[in-house]
Amino acid sequence: MNTETMKIPQAAPSASYSPLLIGELLDSGVRMAGNNQIVYRNLYRHDYRRFRERVHQLAHLLSAQGVQAGNVVAMLDWDSHRYLEAFFAIPMIGAVLHTVNVRLSPEQVHYTMAHAEDDFVLIHEDFLPLLEPLAERLPRIRGYLLCQDTPSRRETVLPLVGEYEELLAEHPAHYEFPVLDENAVATLFYTTGTTGNPKGVYFSHRQLVLHTLCEASTFQSPGFELLNRDKVYMPITPMFHVHAWGVPYTATLLGATQVYPGRYEPDVLVNLLVDEKVDFSHCVPTLLNMVVDAEAISSGSVDLTGWKVLVGGSSLPQSLAIKAWELGIDTRSAYGMSETCPLLTASILPQDINEVDFNSQLPWRSKAGMAVPLVKLEVVDEGGIALPHDGESVGEVRVRAPWLTQGYYKEEARSKELWRNGWLHTGDMAVLDERGFLQIRDRIKDVIKTGGEWVSSLELENLVGQHPGVSEVAVIGIPDEKWGERPAALARASDLNDPPMPEEIQAFLQRFVDEGRITQWAIPSFVRFVDEIPKTSVGKLDKKRIRREL
Amino acid sequence: MNTETMKIPQAAPSASYSPLLIGELLDSGVRMAGNNQIVYRNLYRHDYRRFRERVHQLAHLLSAQGVQAGNVVAMLDWDSHRYLEAFFAIPMIGAVLHTVNVRLSPEQVHYTMAHAEDDFVLIHEDFLPLLEPLAERLPRIRGYLLCQDTPSRRETVLPLVGEYEELLAEHPAHYEFPVLDENAVATLFYTTGTTGNPKGVYFSHRQLVLHTLCEASTFQSPGFELLNRDKVYMPITPMFHVHAWGVPYTATLLGATQVYPGRYEPDVLVNLLVDEKVDFSHCVPTLLNMVVDAEAISSGSVDLTGWKVLVGGSSLPQSLAIKAWELGIDTRSAYGMSETCPLLTASILPQDINEVDFNSQLPWRSKAGMAVPLVKLEVVDEGGIALPHDGESVGEVRVRAPWLTQGYYKEEARSKELWRNGWLHTGDMAVLDERGFLQIRDRIKDVIKTGGEWVSSLELENLVGQHPGVSEVAVIGIPDEKWGERPAALARASDLNDPPMPEEIQAFLQRFVDEGRITQWAIPSFVRFVDEIPKTSVGKLDKKRIRREL
Repeated sequence: MNTETMKIPQAAPSASYSPLLIGELLDSGVRMAGNNQIVYRNLYRHDYRRFRERVHQLAHLLSAQGVQAGNVVAMLDWDSHRYLEAFFAIPMIGAVLHTVNVRLSPEQVHYTMAHAEDDFVLIHEDFLPLLEPLAERLPRIRGYLLCQDTPSRRETVLPLVGEYEELLAEHPAHYEFPVLDENAVATLFYTTGTTGNPKGVYFSHRQLVLHTLCEASTFQSPGFELLNRDKVYMPITPMFHVHAWGVPYTATLLGATQVYPGRYEPDVLVNLLVDEKVDFSHCVPTLLNMVVDAEAISSGSVDLTGWKVLVGGSSLPQSLAIKAWELGIDTRSAYGMSETCPLLTASILPQDINEVDFNSQLPWRSKAGMAVPLVKLEVVDEGGIALPHDGESVGEVRVRAPWLTQGYYKEEARSKELWRNGWLHTGDMAVLDERGFLQIRDRIKDVIKTGGEWVSSLELENLVGQHPGVSEVAVIGIPDEKWGERPAALARASDLNDPPMPEEIQAFLQRFVDEGRITQWAIPSFVRFVDEIPKTSVGKLDKKRIRREL
Repeated sequence: MNTETMKIPQAAPSASYSPLLIGELLDSGVRMAGNNQIVYRNLYRHDYRRFRERVHQLAHLLSAQGVQAGNVVAMLDWDSHRYLEAFFAIPMIGAVLHTVNVRLSPEQVHYTMAHAEDDFVLIHEDFLPLLEPLAERLPRIRGYLLCQDTPSRRETVLPLVGEYEELLAEHPAHYEFPVLDENAVATLFYTTGTTGNPKGVYFSHRQLVLHTLCEASTFQSPGFELLNRDKVYMPITPMFHVHAWGVPYTATLLGATQVYPGRYEPDVLVNLLVDEKVDFSHCVPTLLNMVVDAEAISSGSVDLTGWKVLVGGSSLPQSLAIKAWELGIDTRSAYGMSETCPLLTASILPQDINEVDFNSQLPWRSKAGMAVPLVKLEVVDEGGIALPHDGESVGEVRVRAPWLTQGYYKEEARSKELWRNGWLHTGDMAVLDERGFLQIRDRIKDVIKTGGEWVSSLELENLVGQHPGVSEVAVIGIPDEKWGERPAALARASDLNDPPMPEEIQAFLQRFVDEGRITQWAIPSFVRFVDEIPKTSVGKLDKKRIRREL
């Protein structure tokens, strides 16, 4: 076929192409709701018009510090109004925002900051002790801007250029931002895998704008309805982690009220949820689990009725969705990963499902959901052939979308592994049902192969988690001479002083064998109760460490 | 400032960039609501899955007829399921859809089809008599595909290749669409000005996708809430006119039920509104006026309570918004033009306004509204300096957005006039208020200058229209030796047999002079009642003809 299409003919030389730049998202929010508030704990509060002025002031501040287009600016802060400002000001001057994962080990933090070639750093006082011993080995960094929440200044050997609020106040409220190429890199951050050094993923202005527009349409959709201009939003996913799933950008586009909780402290979180009347948050299942188990909430002394929580990072166990529902918390699921900006799918309840009762909705709420606009998603077999949408055929998820990292930063071999034949390979095993709803079964490397059968560690975790005596559980495969591998479970008891017997759990699972939901082989050979299940820096089950401990 | 930004580094050679192509909009709709319906009068009805299959079949049909990427395919049809399919299939194979304005004079239709260099034509039987005498002068056209709603085939001298439904059925339901450049032109159509030949405007895949995403976010917003998956949509703006404001694309993205009314016949429209439970339509004020004046509706025998109507093309007179509201019809305004794809602004009611009573909302509903995401809009003086948002300073509206035509097709001089210094000049005079709401005052060429004062013909029309004896009015400036120009009004009486006296209208307007809303000079020197006010092919007041008639 001849694909010589008609390109834009005779564009007037005076015409503008209007690149997709994230500054547009901010302008949209100011127009939509100039009076809506940005809140940081009980420390700061201002409206969108002031928010935009502060972004312009921050751009001046950075420029005055010599930060230029093409520079990389590292941010080490808790979730804050400052972080939100950095989301905009740094990319808008053409620099790259490196959102440093502060939960990594000091050596990993050093690795990422050296690898990213950070030129300038914004640092919360709490992280001074983390960087002080590393600074000598980061000679490229030309200055540190302190982010301070308390009046007393901490002593530090780092060459501070001043304090964020103090310096900001010195600068004018209008900055003439350059018209950038929409493919300019806006953000950069690192994701940890099971092996090797953290990998850098990076996103352009274009990618972030498109991700935001599709997230906005998705989040406003019936059957989801998480966010719009009139809602109050508070992230409980760190902003260093895939831009808090891109939601601060989406909330800004829509003009929603935004509440930033700083360091995640249970009391502060609960107070903000209640005092600011938060409508919508997102977090990993672990964190939601902590919230619903919190004394104030499970006792009913704090009422979270109407709070909507989008769960991602790992699958939402049905048991957790039920616990939350009983407390009036309305959960939805989404799926994505650091490499994908992250949004790929969302559990938008189909029309007929949206009208039925909670129990009938439960499976739909816990699935990863349907691909959002502009995402092409397939589940393929090992030969790359797309599998049928039958709810049964398990294969790897591969995707195309306009907002996927185009590789791992400065990592040719790993980039080649991620992107094969124009598809980003997620490393996740899943099924698609008749409606196109995705259900993640496992990470490829977490799948348990026992006696030639595949067992999904995720499904087992979901089932074990339904035992009333279990508050959290991780299932892995352990080597077995006869069967290749055997499932094993590491669990945390609901009552740490009175954990169930392993046999009780095995007997409990037998019920699902009898129902035909799992095979006999899936019942774990070992069940061990521990006080704490190892987690990664972003709150996911750390199966690498669990393997070592079991 | 150094603006050497960090471009996408080391994109994996196997990575895909994912161009913005309109096929993605269709896939999104199928995922969102595969069971939702596409309806054409009482003639056809099928779901989104079938809709997609038919788009694939149409692509096969066109390819089999030799239509290739880069070809231009003209469409002459009433609003139909076929037209919707053409919106997708033609651009998706890399061809350009020319939506022919069938309301133009035969000579103008010929001009546009020759200028567009149409290669192939889809034609409804009703338009055979229009093209038959022109076909000889359109030698480039290699075939005509008939769109037929009735069983009996009309005789024609045109070289038909067959009938749409009959040929469609011969083709398979899967077409392997090419991955196009997102800047490939997707659509082309003509807009008529006050002078000279119609001008061609053209839009790329990228532009249509971005317009659709921003329209989707806007239409789902609180204070607007016109469209989403669960709504039923029916256009009453012809699909040849700026893709029916792009809404069929937006409705498809969201998976909304879509009803296409064919030729606009009052009975058919009303029956479809009622029978299909239409939630949302859009039209020009003239058409809404016809609807609210229709016997069945004004008598209350047909209940349209809850119907939302987006009015554009011309300003929504407050008198009309009130008449509609009294019948339960909820109106909103939007602003745009053929050159702008069209959406620029939308009267999204701000939070505090959204909560007040209708009468307080009225001015907000009738304004053009706020710029939608990604639109930069300024009101500038003659020197190109942006005017303050004070609700008073009148200037020309100029815009930037990623979806503006990059020029007039093959018209260098007119393109240069449209695009100056990177801004598209709308030729509309307007004010912006403190909230950034745009209110159109006039077309530059319609502004009346009397005794050195500027008078807005639109504002006068709005005020004259509030007189109970007036159903419609056009105000123009007529030359006057002493004052330069004087306002004159051409009106249609509510009761054609008993029009008010001109003096009554002038006395009525004196009230607004006393209130300080208009100056004494603004009262028209002449008021004349006629049975019909001349309209353009898209239903706007035809001030060119009115000037001749007054």
